[in-house]
Amino acid sequence: MSKEKIGITVSKKNDFSEWYTQVVLKAKLADYAPVKGLIVLRPDGYSIWEALKNSFDKKFAKNGIRNGFLPVLIPESLLGKEKKHFAGFNPEVFWVTHSGENEVGDRLALRPTSETLAYTLYSKWIKSWRDLPLKINFWNTALRAEIKATKPFLRTSEFLWQEGHTVHATEEEAKKEVIKILDIYKNTVEEELAIPVITGEKSEKEKFVGAVYTTTMESIMPDGKALQMGTSHFLGQNFSKPFEVKFADKDNVEHFAWQTSWGVSWRLIGAMIMVHGDDKGLVLPPKVAPIQVVIVPIYNSEEDKRQVLDKAEEIKKLLESKLIRIHIDDRNEISPGYKFNDWEMKGIPLRIEIGPKDIQKQKVVLAKRHNREKFDLMFENIGKIDLILDEIQSKMLDSARKQAQENTFDIFNYSDFKEKIGKGGFFKAYWCGNQECEDTIKEETGADIRVIEFGKENNTGKCVYCNEQSTKMPLFARGY
Amino acid sequence: MSKEKIGITVSKKNDFSEWYTQVVLKAKLADYAPVKGLIVLRPDGYSIWEALKNSFDKKFAKNGIRNGFLPVLIPESLLGKEKKHFAGFNPEVFWVTHSGENEVGDRLALRPTSETLAYTLYSKWIKSWRDLPLKINFWNTALRAEIKATKPFLRTSEFLWQEGHTVHATEEEAKKEVIKILDIYKNTVEEELAIPVITGEKSEKEKFVGAVYTTTMESIMPDGKALQMGTSHFLGQNFSKPFEVKFADKDNVEHFAWQTSWGVSWRLIGAMIMVHGDDKGLVLPPKVAPIQVVIVPIYNSEEDKRQVLDKAEEIKKLLESKLIRIHIDDRNEISPGYKFNDWEMKGIPLRIEIGPKDIQKQKVVLAKRHNREKFDLMFENIGKIDLILDEIQSKMLDSARKQAQENTFDIFNYSDFKEKIGKGGFFKAYWCGNQECEDTIKEETGADIRVIEFGKENNTGKCVYCNEQSTKMPLFARGY
Repeated sequence: MSKEKIGITVSKKNDFSEWYTQVVLKAKLADYAPVKGLIVLRPDGYSIWEALKNSFDKKFAKNGIRNGFLPVLIPESLLGKEKKHFAGFNPEVFWVTHSGENEVGDRLALRPTSETLAYTLYSKWIKSWRDLPLKINFWNTALRAEIKATKPFLRTSEFLWQEGHTVHATEEEAKKEVIKILDIYKNTVEEELAIPVITGEKSEKEKFVGAVYTTTMESIMPDGKALQMGTSHFLGQNFSKPFEVKFADKDNVEHFAWQTSWGVSWRLIGAMIMVHGDDKGLVLPPKVAPIQVVIVPIYNSEEDKRQVLDKAEEIKKLLESKLIRIHIDDRNEISPGYKFNDWEMKGIPLRIEIGPKDIQKQKVVLAKRHNREKFDLMFENIGKIDLILDEIQSKMLDSARKQAQENTFDIFNYSDFKEKIGKGGFFKAYWCGNQECEDTIKEETGADIRVIEFGKENNTGKCVYCNEQSTKMPLFARGY
Repeated sequence: MSKEKIGITVSKKNDFSEWYTQVVLKAKLADYAPVKGLIVLRPDGYSIWEALKNSFDKKFAKNGIRNGFLPVLIPESLLGKEKKHFAGFNPEVFWVTHSGENEVGDRLALRPTSETLAYTLYSKWIKSWRDLPLKINFWNTALRAEIKATKPFLRTSEFLWQEGHTVHATEEEAKKEVIKILDIYKNTVEEELAIPVITGEKSEKEKFVGAVYTTTMESIMPDGKALQMGTSHFLGQNFSKPFEVKFADKDNVEHFAWQTSWGVSWRLIGAMIMVHGDDKGLVLPPKVAPIQVVIVPIYNSEEDKRQVLDKAEEIKKLLESKLIRIHIDDRNEISPGYKFNDWEMKGIPLRIEIGPKDIQKQKVVLAKRHNREKFDLMFENIGKIDLILDEIQSKMLDSARKQAQENTFDIFNYSDFKEKIGKGGFFKAYWCGNQECEDTIKEETGADIRVIEFGKENNTGKCVYCNEQSTKMPLFARGY
């Protein structure tokens, strides 16, 4: 096989979309399923999801959230119980009409999201204030038939996600939960995936159908398009009323409960690929890399081979004792150069090269994937590789932050907005809060309000569209 | 609420089926979903599945198996590619015919099992001997519309399971993999769930549709019915041929690969409930219990309360440092007696009772759930509670083994078979290997061949039905 076919054949800068697809496929993260719009995760892709899952699970558990299981089938009658919510999802729903040869009575929807199902159960489970708060998370998939062009991880008709559903006795407690979750999301994405996010509220137009308000975390991708990275909704009593999620308070009076729901999906993996990848392929943050360090032994004779592999094993054991995920690539009949390319494509954060001459000099050669730096490391310092991995992780976040900042612009007038939107980026611009302005901006530029950033509420200026006095400065962008 | 309503209202002995359902619902493991035949897992039920999952994952990883993800939708044309396999599942398949308002072209099946989908992908991924063995496991659900009466965990139209799919260069290696997996299954079920299993082969009639042969682990339940606890199939080249799972060997000649598939489901949780539960409710093996030790503080005055809770916290910290999962039930206005019943219903393996008088005597009262033993433990020995939990785990396996043995019978003639089958149990009986005898026995007694036990191949005797000389002595039983 020629190198051209194995490597990425376009540059990230010149053909971002094609570059992205090639990285997904060639790094063996995912592949297309036989049904259009569906993908399959290969082990290297799924293990990133598992790393995220583990990290979230620990944080959820600390916050008193436990996991449960919901079936994928929801009766049509149930899905329609909250009208706006149903209307929002209806065009995307997959419908089961038959089991075997028999027609099912009430059509069955494949879960586009589980509010209606979960809250039917919750209304049975919750009787009194003692049963609250009830906080359950579900690791499952959601199914939404995509009409637009699909893209692995970013837009697929079935996607892995988690959906959390909590119930509280008071409005205040529920609102706090919404923010607690958003904080967990932000911390995890920044710490594990090295991607900076901006948190805030969605506009009324962009909120989740059925929510009172939606909080969100958003990131700007290197192609200038924004990606919604996760949302946490305050549902108020919008669902507790139709689904009768009620509790008897200490005074024995019945109240409707206050609810939240929230989710992140494998879109996060898509973001990680886009933010960190380069023309050589994937670049993995060490914390989520299935293999953090790969050793490529270099030898020409059988004698050298034995010596080099012995040393490689010694290094492996040492690093494993520090819980580093390490692999020795001892494949025969494959050149070191080919191996270098292979592991670079797969984005392994750190490569150790070791040959007989290195052993003579009591050192190895280290190659960092993210900045392609190469340097010698003396044997005596190999135990410090965990610190090098930590440093890579933090440098990757720094450079992603820099990249995002370079893609964020203050925009003060609409002609500037229209002129610059073609190149993409986050546009910070004042907005009067009027949906008409929001709609017209969207129509004329393709840009949405992605997020009304927290902590910026007291700014005042003139609406970028209508010039009215404004107290909101959202981030606009074209989005995925 | 009266105690009657909270507790189990029937005895395990007199009404096993109703007892089982009440335990599932009242211990809050699961609940019915709005669609008939589907259930929801509540956190206490799902955490048992998570414990099993973690245990399997560790063993799979050691065996070089990694996890992946497959979508739930499979095109009808693909499912039909291996004819026998398709015919076996066809009557149970849920069909998606519409997405939104639009008809889908090729109908989409909800995955009854993923062989056809996985192997379509595998045929793309496997090119050469270097790509083998390929061993991927999928934690997902399977959907099979149940026509018979459904039962939580035992028979539901959607169930949680794992399905593993491996590909090998040689027949021998694939056959070895089948047995390696069956060993992992057996060890995990015996060690984690304290349920003894019998491993062996299925008869030709009972094998998986599409397999060359099926190995299985089976257990006998306290009501005398057998439960299939997991299966591991040797697929030979039955799928690799229609799906073109081929590889170029070292000599560059193309060969069809050899395959295995295997799975266990949440039936294991059903088995655990049936084998260990009693008239007070669930009994959890310590290894899979979400809470292993519950402390019930006993006090009458505020002063006592403070003292008792302080001591409870001290014990909790000590045991947490030993990684024991422990909870203090400090609910107000609920009597200790009520709490005892509550935690017994939930099957928590060990209860610690502590009151002011206990503190004076420098001791606590321990109550074991599985045998309802109560005894004093001096403060100085509280650090040994991990050993007590280990002992409970092993005693539970012992008593389950005894229970299974008491339910296993050597049967040498058919009149004996027919007379005793009403009371249930595993019947060890010779069988000539002829499917006509197997069919007639099934017809006349309702008993299947559950498993042809490994290591008993050299026995000889007379077929329990036709009296022909036989070298097989399978276990017959009526099954779930």
